[in-house]
Amino acid sequence: MQNYKMLLQYEGTRYNGWQKQGNTPDTIQGIIEALLGEINGSPVELNGSGRTDAGVHAEEQCASFKLDTDTDCAVLKTELNRLLKKDIRILSIEKADPRFHARLNAKEKTYIYRICTDEKADVFTRHFTYLYPCCVDMQKMKRAAALLTGRHDFKAFCSDRRTKKSTVREIYSIDTELEGKLLRMRFTGSGFLYNMVRIMSGTLLKVGTGEMQPDDMTAVLESLDRKNAGPTLPSSGLTLQSVRY
Amino acid sequence: MQNYKMLLQYEGTRYNGWQKQGNTPDTIQGIIEALLGEINGSPVELNGSGRTDAGVHAEEQCASFKLDTDTDCAVLKTELNRLLKKDIRILSIEKADPRFHARLNAKEKTYIYRICTDEKADVFTRHFTYLYPCCVDMQKMKRAAALLTGRHDFKAFCSDRRTKKSTVREIYSIDTELEGKLLRMRFTGSGFLYNMVRIMSGTLLKVGTGEMQPDDMTAVLESLDRKNAGPTLPSSGLTLQSVRY
Repeated sequence: MQNYKMLLQYEGTRYNGWQKQGNTPDTIQGIIEALLGEINGSPVELNGSGRTDAGVHAEEQCASFKLDTDTDCAVLKTELNRLLKKDIRILSIEKADPRFHARLNAKEKTYIYRICTDEKADVFTRHFTYLYPCCVDMQKMKRAAALLTGRHDFKAFCSDRRTKKSTVREIYSIDTELEGKLLRMRFTGSGFLYNMVRIMSGTLLKVGTGEMQPDDMTAVLESLDRKNAGPTLPSSGLTLQSVRY
Repeated sequence: MQNYKMLLQYEGTRYNGWQKQGNTPDTIQGIIEALLGEINGSPVELNGSGRTDAGVHAEEQCASFKLDTDTDCAVLKTELNRLLKKDIRILSIEKADPRFHARLNAKEKTYIYRICTDEKADVFTRHFTYLYPCCVDMQKMKRAAALLTGRHDFKAFCSDRRTKKSTVREIYSIDTELEGKLLRMRFTGSGFLYNMVRIMSGTLLKVGTGEMQPDDMTAVLESLDRKNAGPTLPSSGLTLQSVRY
């Protein structure tokens, strides 16, 4: 068995997210596993660095898989790119240490949430931008972002109420910037809970528009209660930017 | 009558170009003129800075038009953005001097041609990029670009053989850059002939891949013969970036 590390990008618009789910068609994992299985001659398991939800995009997702035979990486990459539609692209494939696992070894992930605050979205980025016409106070957003940064119990920023696992995570940085009317929020952390980036984005947006105050962040975190945070913004604005190992 | 200056952007993929043509549906000019005519209560003529061909995009096209009544620019912009599909966006509308005409007063235009030289196009820019897997020699391309810059008779770079008008134009600059595997060629000039940017891009690409030499540019220009220049690249890679007045 040879282990491989793959980097890939996708526009998630047409897909039911990363993770294959029974007979649900059109998941990124399901589609690529099927192609790898055909190439391998027997089923292949593709482990992504993490699941991205339906509609979420990835600029550089990482995944690992094992094949029965030692295969030329460049040939494999070209073959997959030929078979995959235009909205999924393999960036690279390389041979990896047998112990490498894209999810278990991931050290850090960066996500970007894009919001167009104009009355209509830029036509060239509209497929990966959430349209929300408003005016935002960047100073307030930056103060709120600073309060969310660091090691906290993010239970209030998680959609899964039933989880028994730890909801403590560490966020290394949250950068917010406004370029023209395009608002970008970039989150880097050790890992994120279910819907956490979309809920943090929704909460920061409420701070930006004045519906919440920066200082509210501390109370929201301490409450551990999902209903105190802002809304879960649509998946279309979210992009996994990179994974670090 | 009040004269207006409008800036707009569009992804040209779904459209038959800028210029309305009899009963051909889905031209940018035709669609916006129809909406303006309804708002005005009588037909309106929309003059673009120039025609963009079917499939060509615009980051900032300029157009002028006259309405019978003095209308609030912000209200008009919002109404048009609401009525237009997501791939056409009005960036601004302002009142203009009665003599302002978007085509006649245009001083300078900038076009960008994008080529992805990798085996598959970046999923996020694939709709405005021409995929042409190859290796390019940037030094050769820059030398060729320098020879095409300036005031020349560009008849060899024009698709319209029957034109009786002058084919002399001045190109102020041609910038070529390679970022990763994405090749960008930016052309700024007083004006361009029919298909001129796409033919120049095809010619420079042939120089980049070694099929033509930089020094060939002088002979191609002097020949005044279309068949000596490179191919007309697809419209999908071409974007009108801006117009200066």
